[in-house]
Amino acid sequence: MNRDKALEIVKEHLTEHRFVHTCGVMETSIELAKRYGADEKKAETAAIFHDYAKFRDKQEMQSIIEDEGLAQDLLLYNSELWHAPVGAVLVEREVGIEDVEILNAIRFHTSGKEGMTVLDKVIYLADYIEPNRQFPGVEEVRELAEKSLDLALLKALQNTMTFLMKRNQAIYPDTFRFYNELTLNQRR
Amino acid sequence: MNRDKALEIVKEHLTEHRFVHTCGVMETSIELAKRYGADEKKAETAAIFHDYAKFRDKQEMQSIIEDEGLAQDLLLYNSELWHAPVGAVLVEREVGIEDVEILNAIRFHTSGKEGMTVLDKVIYLADYIEPNRQFPGVEEVRELAEKSLDLALLKALQNTMTFLMKRNQAIYPDTFRFYNELTLNQRR
Repeated sequence: MNRDKALEIVKEHLTEHRFVHTCGVMETSIELAKRYGADEKKAETAAIFHDYAKFRDKQEMQSIIEDEGLAQDLLLYNSELWHAPVGAVLVEREVGIEDVEILNAIRFHTSGKEGMTVLDKVIYLADYIEPNRQFPGVEEVRELAEKSLDLALLKALQNTMTFLMKRNQAIYPDTFRFYNELTLNQRR
Repeated sequence: MNRDKALEIVKEHLTEHRFVHTCGVMETSIELAKRYGADEKKAETAAIFHDYAKFRDKQEMQSIIEDEGLAQDLLLYNSELWHAPVGAVLVEREVGIEDVEILNAIRFHTSGKEGMTVLDKVIYLADYIEPNRQFPGVEEVRELAEKSLDLALLKALQNTMTFLMKRNQAIYPDTFRFYNELTLNQRR
């Protein structure tokens, strides 16, 4: 899909702040795709639509998780996770994107999971480090992203899991498995 | 089993330093068992034998994990985890203790797992806070242990997982599930 057309579609579903973030994720995804050998056009499209479902009603997201046979354990964890798999469903249904690689990159961009493709990882990381992001630790991840996709992701996961643990919050099992996989990769 | 006899048996398998630790775990386990309603005598016995296999040869431990049908994924994770399930096997085989509650408390004292009994939790926590332990954060866990078994364990798990993450080390899935279960309990 044409970039301008895609941005025009997604803009209606986002706040101004989230649209600016989305443009940042788009630019960063293209850079990372170039650097680490993912399809740049798919990275662009996945980035543009990654937060498509971010502002959907919680009840609607819950229904989609139930009706579309998404992982039901999502409902036991923080609802912040829901917009990613729900987004993959809605981007296919409402926007008509059928490319599974793009849809998966949208699907896994918040939880992560074991066995992600380079494209999945690019979107996950771009979402974390795009230039508008400002939080403790982001700069270190940006620097790591210059030289290693997996090292940058490992640090991002450590930050995220530490953040959740400090708040006594559960960690979604796919996120934990993604972390463990990255540590095991380091040892190879 | 008589306390003195049990201590005499275990002493031969431990360094002096580890024997002192074991006596600390014993005293603390009895206190915690009283406080949180576990069987004090079982807590005493499980505590005395919790590190029975600590100094076994790594090759021997690996063989036992393979031959006794213990969780094979243990072999993919830090060998520090092995002495607990291997200990349960050897305490049964060599010392003749057959009480499943005692053996399980030994088995799970390092990794933890979902669905632990109060006795399992008592041994896990006593191992962490016994008076000879000195590391950052232990005092806070000791204080929490005065009022809530699960809150103390949650903090201990957070410390342990943070420690592992800072070193880019994998977290054993049972440990992660134990953490998540404790966070979900907080919400109830």
